Amino acid sequence: MHIDLCVPMASQIKSFASDNYAPAHPEVIEALVGANVGDAPAYGADEWSEQARELISKALGSDVESFFVFNGTGANVTGLVSFLHPGSAVVCATQSHLNNDEGGAPERIAGVKLIDVPTDDAKLTPEHVTNVWRRIGDEHAPQPHVVSVTQSTELGTVYQVSELAALAACVHELGGLLHIDGARISNAAAHLGVNLGEITVKTGADLLSFGGTKNGLIGAEAVVFLRSGDDHYYPWIRKSLMQLSSKQRFISAQFIALLSNDLWRRNATHANSMAARLAKGLSGMAQVEIAHPVQANAVFARMHPDLIAHLLETYRFYVWDERENLVRLMCSWNTEPELVDEFIKAIAESPAAKQTR
Amino acid sequence: MHIDLCVPMASQIKSFASDNYAPAHPEVIEALVGANVGDAPAYGADEWSEQARELISKALGSDVESFFVFNGTGANVTGLVSFLHPGSAVVCATQSHLNNDEGGAPERIAGVKLIDVPTDDAKLTPEHVTNVWRRIGDEHAPQPHVVSVTQSTELGTVYQVSELAALAACVHELGGLLHIDGARISNAAAHLGVNLGEITVKTGADLLSFGGTKNGLIGAEAVVFLRSGDDHYYPWIRKSLMQLSSKQRFISAQFIALLSNDLWRRNATHANSMAARLAKGLSGMAQVEIAHPVQANAVFARMHPDLIAHLLETYRFYVWDERENLVRLMCSWNTEPELVDEFIKAIAESPAAKQTR
Amino acid sequence: MHIDLCVPMASQIKSFASDNYAPAHPEVIEALVGANVGDAPAYGADEWSEQARELISKALGSDVESFFVFNGTGANVTGLVSFLHPGSAVVCATQSHLNNDEGGAPERIAGVKLIDVPTDDAKLTPEHVTNVWRRIGDEHAPQPHVVSVTQSTELGTVYQVSELAALAACVHELGGLLHIDGARISNAAAHLGVNLGEITVKTGADLLSFGGTKNGLIGAEAVVFLRSGDDHYYPWIRKSLMQLSSKQRFISAQFIALLSNDLWRRNATHANSMAARLAKGLSGMAQVEIAHPVQANAVFARMHPDLIAHLLETYRFYVWDERENLVRLMCSWNTEPELVDEFIKAIAESPAAKQTR
Amino acid sequence: MHIDLCVPMASQIKSFASDNYAPAHPEVIEALVGANVGDAPAYGADEWSEQARELISKALGSDVESFFVFNGTGANVTGLVSFLHPGSAVVCATQSHLNNDEGGAPERIAGVKLIDVPTDDAKLTPEHVTNVWRRIGDEHAPQPHVVSVTQSTELGTVYQVSELAALAACVHELGGLLHIDGARISNAAAHLGVNLGEITVKTGADLLSFGGTKNGLIGAEAVVFLRSGDDHYYPWIRKSLMQLSSKQRFISAQFIALLSNDLWRRNATHANSMAARLAKGLSGMAQVEIAHPVQANAVFARMHPDLIAHLLETYRFYVWDERENLVRLMCSWNTEPELVDEFIKAIAESPAAKQTR
Repeated sequence: MHIDLCVPMASQIKSFASDNYAPAHPEVIEALVGANVGDAPAYGADEWSEQARELISKALGSDVESFFVFNGTGANVTGLVSFLHPGSAVVCATQSHLNNDEGGAPERIAGVKLIDVPTDDAKLTPEHVTNVWRRIGDEHAPQPHVVSVTQSTELGTVYQVSELAALAACVHELGGLLHIDGARISNAAAHLGVNLGEITVKTGADLLSFGGTKNGLIGAEAVVFLRSGDDHYYPWIRKSLMQLSSKQRFISAQFIALLSNDLWRRNATHANSMAARLAKGLSGMAQVEIAHPVQANAVFARMHPDLIAHLLETYRFYVWDERENLVRLMCSWNTEPELVDEFIKAIAESPAAKQTR
Repeated sequence: MHIDLCVPMASQIKSFASDNYAPAHPEVIEALVGANVGDAPAYGADEWSEQARELISKALGSDVESFFVFNGTGANVTGLVSFLHPGSAVVCATQSHLNNDEGGAPERIAGVKLIDVPTDDAKLTPEHVTNVWRRIGDEHAPQPHVVSVTQSTELGTVYQVSELAALAACVHELGGLLHIDGARISNAAAHLGVNLGEITVKTGADLLSFGGTKNGLIGAEAVVFLRSGDDHYYPWIRKSLMQLSSKQRFISAQFIALLSNDLWRRNATHANSMAARLAKGLSGMAQVEIAHPVQANAVFARMHPDLIAHLLETYRFYVWDERENLVRLMCSWNTEPELVDEFIKAIAESPAAKQTR
Repeated sequence: MHIDLCVPMASQIKSFASDNYAPAHPEVIEALVGANVGDAPAYGADEWSEQARELISKALGSDVESFFVFNGTGANVTGLVSFLHPGSAVVCATQSHLNNDEGGAPERIAGVKLIDVPTDDAKLTPEHVTNVWRRIGDEHAPQPHVVSVTQSTELGTVYQVSELAALAACVHELGGLLHIDGARISNAAAHLGVNLGEITVKTGADLLSFGGTKNGLIGAEAVVFLRSGDDHYYPWIRKSLMQLSSKQRFISAQFIALLSNDLWRRNATHANSMAARLAKGLSGMAQVEIAHPVQANAVFARMHPDLIAHLLETYRFYVWDERENLVRLMCSWNTEPELVDEFIKAIAESPAAKQTR
Repeated sequence: MHIDLCVPMASQIKSFASDNYAPAHPEVIEALVGANVGDAPAYGADEWSEQARELISKALGSDVESFFVFNGTGANVTGLVSFLHPGSAVVCATQSHLNNDEGGAPERIAGVKLIDVPTDDAKLTPEHVTNVWRRIGDEHAPQPHVVSVTQSTELGTVYQVSELAALAACVHELGGLLHIDGARISNAAAHLGVNLGEITVKTGADLLSFGGTKNGLIGAEAVVFLRSGDDHYYPWIRKSLMQLSSKQRFISAQFIALLSNDLWRRNATHANSMAARLAKGLSGMAQVEIAHPVQANAVFARMHPDLIAHLLETYRFYVWDERENLVRLMCSWNTEPELVDEFIKAIAESPAAKQTR
């Protein structure tokens, strides 16, 4: 039997909806198919898992401890649980995925209170952190212990390396720990032009949710303990929180592909460049206002509701906040420049576009 | 790019360890690769997921509601949560996977007490159930509400259709609900020579964890509500318990393969027949005692510890209970008859075999 | 043996710290001692519990279902749990006790996300509620289901009866339920000059945490289901959440005292009038700014930090927010007018008082 | 105002139902009333709480850390939570209160699996413990970490000091910790003729639930950390698990009474002696079989169902297991010898008594 593994066809769906709408990169499929040979030990005791763990250490430039899980919510919550004490709270941006889009999993699974902090561009600062630390020692208040930042953020912005380092230093001085929700960590690294170690281990962060699914995998995430010794109970956390894969080689093989031949950077760079192309095209238009700096693979823009309605007839994207006429336009590893240009043109030519926002 | 999708090579591992050690069936890989075309809506709103849900209804002969999740623990726990009230307890066999091998997930995630009942062959009876229902109405006691049976059981035995029907009737009369942990439901159906509807919907059971991973998939399970209306909160349960896949088409596509061309039955029948071949070979041997009826794809056997040690030098399998010198020999869709015969021969020729058990 | 049950001496502690610092009212002690006669059925099957439940129904003017628990956190969380579905969220004011001072119990015990809404005087409005209901039906978002208001609020303000009724109508129209955290419900009723039914049952609210501890009891709270049928699982919730008292007569007897001879109103009216006296005295002073309307038994005021420090040498009270130089001055059933006057005088004569805030 | 604090009248209820049916001892009431003087800091920062903590250290002969909670379930669960890691399991006897009568609170609140071990007289042995430790290190299995014994047990039996010491040594060697559910620890000490330190601290146990409610208090329990340092997170555990009393002086005052003038021993000794008197009277009767050694304040006996029915017309007690015709007869600090003698006489003279068991 032979299967054609061409680059997936341009979809009939014209989508800026999500990097989760994208297919897997052919190299990922190839790796997955390649792992389908004979019996292999289950639950991560296989060769692929070992190799993938080594590749992560190599990519981060440090001997870290990695564990594979099914999805991003799983990575975030199981990782955080390994850092929480009774009474601990997690600090995050109000706009964070953790706060808005995990379906309440942190509260439901970890029993933890999220202390969410309103921010401008979804980026926390040392000042935010210091402020929420006020009630430390107070028996009646959940105790902030882990600060969770998203890199790149849910609004498509990116923490500078120095910003993360300052956060890590601040959190550590307060006795806490820093978690990076890296569902799009590759997009951040690609934007900054650094490698994955520079925006994780070297910043002093303690824990990384290393995302793969949104960067061309089928479905694979890793929980990475950046400092040794923190993973002592993690195997039981992963198992009891239902994130342990039996045929784990098929998750690990995806990470092998992602970390081979710089696929992570190739995919992320392409997605980012498509967002930049989109932002550039939109930035000159009176009927569109870019809402946040476009640094990773998302463009947030405000448009007149009639224009939004018109575009939704042809294109898929999310209205992020109806009250603000704010839409999210997401690019991915497989977004084609032609689609971007067509979308820009559609706005320019739209009758609705002549209206003010 | 082209990839060879041959039947996976006979592994260098000679394994009776687990059906989780097995690779995926080539038809499953083919379906998965085939789903990798262009963008598709995330979180189950894609065509593959719709088709897979329809195929499950067709296979069960009833208009059921199906939801896909990552793994068996996830299927069991999220499904059970949808049936639990405050104070509810779940009744299961002491030997059940739920009780022993979910890492305590039911207690940790669902906060539920398992009332485990010692059984002979891991099969619950109406008498067991009636007995644990004694403290219904007592404020101080967890209230049994869901009875969870495993089909086929963790000991390789199979409930007759009539046994399940009697259980369902009993549980319903007591005001409870019946869950089938069908991690190996296909093996049970294959053994009984019935279709999947006959041992699920038609027995009167309420909820099914429909297992695919152990029957030739890469990793895919389904939670199937057998009666309409029970799934009202399930989408939020699945999401908040971290079992919602973003690129769900890659899970659904596996189920499409499983339910096409009777793959589920072909795989299960092969695995069962290899277990039968193994049992037949061992049953004539003085040095081996078969511990449980061999009905599905597992053989449980007692052997002298020296023989066990000798075999473990070459073959992989689990010592189920050291105190009893009990081993589990698991066959799977890809177990080769030659391996079975070789294993039997190895016992016959083993110097250790001459010892008594 | 005889014991003097005089009104408790004026404490050596000069306290505006909390109504939890206050002793129990002598009539409460008398009732408790009176319940100490012979054996009585445990866990609420005693005569005192029955009588107390009847007195609550009488006080609320409706045949409600009441259950006694140990403390306010217990009342709030166990009550809310009885109303939550999988995925449900609870809406509350950012300044609420539920959000700030339960030690994260709602998240830890109920696994529920609190959606907290910033407000001016800790009072929610229908507009607040409607706004948070936006993501109903979205699988990724916790689903608002219960709105919890505090009456009187944590800032000493009081909802008008019409405000509560409007909230209840709004919440019900959205398909949700309204909970009143009534840790100081008596203070609210006393302020409004209404009976307890008018600000609970008659507003259309669904659930009441009926507070006693802060109004002169030793330690007793009640969970009151205002509509029939909602308490079906509550006995198991209370037990499994560790709020079921074995010798419950000693909790119930306190409620009998509270609801006899209008003790609830006498205590609350006194506490409110002491806060009013304090507010009146402070309102004419340049060095003090009253921060919120004084309607129940709390006065929130801003002062120069030197003045705060000076007062803390003699008096006990809480600095509510250091960043704002905001203090909370709490009055209780046993606050003496002389102490209020002395405190006002101490401010007037303080050298620090001459400074601006 | 004066209140008569006579010894509570002999109740009209003729009860062997529970030591929770008993009233409070007059000295306890006296202490509680005595604590009702003026304002006092809330949440345990009061003088009475300090004194009570010191009295516990004195009674145990060691500088332990004590915390007061509302009830026995609260003491057990909050204490255990402070010892649990992710994945930890708790080992207990199948007959334990923890396993049967906490309403599933350990699972619901702590998310912990109880590994229950069938025993003869509800007493665990080092052999039991060693046996359940088999799967340590296995990612799929909850990891036994805390062994919880009840002293005296739910069957009225008592661990010898040497038995507890052997258990503690065994558990520690395995890397675990030993918890004593001491809801009736005073009855055990009274039976053994030792002080409270000898059966707790000196055995090497790590954690004690020190029960007061069943030994003459209104409602008060203590969580006692027997080794320093283990209580680091306990204040947040107690608060977030809803067991922190605001007016804690009224709980602490009860413990002051219990630990003053040997009240704990006087009450327990009386209860034990009444059980002994009852057992002695019953032991000569053909129609009654004592089921377990009578060492503390409970008598378990098998009788003909007709006899049970006859006795239940006049006396209150629990049928422990209908299938075995097993009843529990509980004595308490206020059980009167006349009631014991009358009960024995009622059996002797019962027409039903002539029947065989």
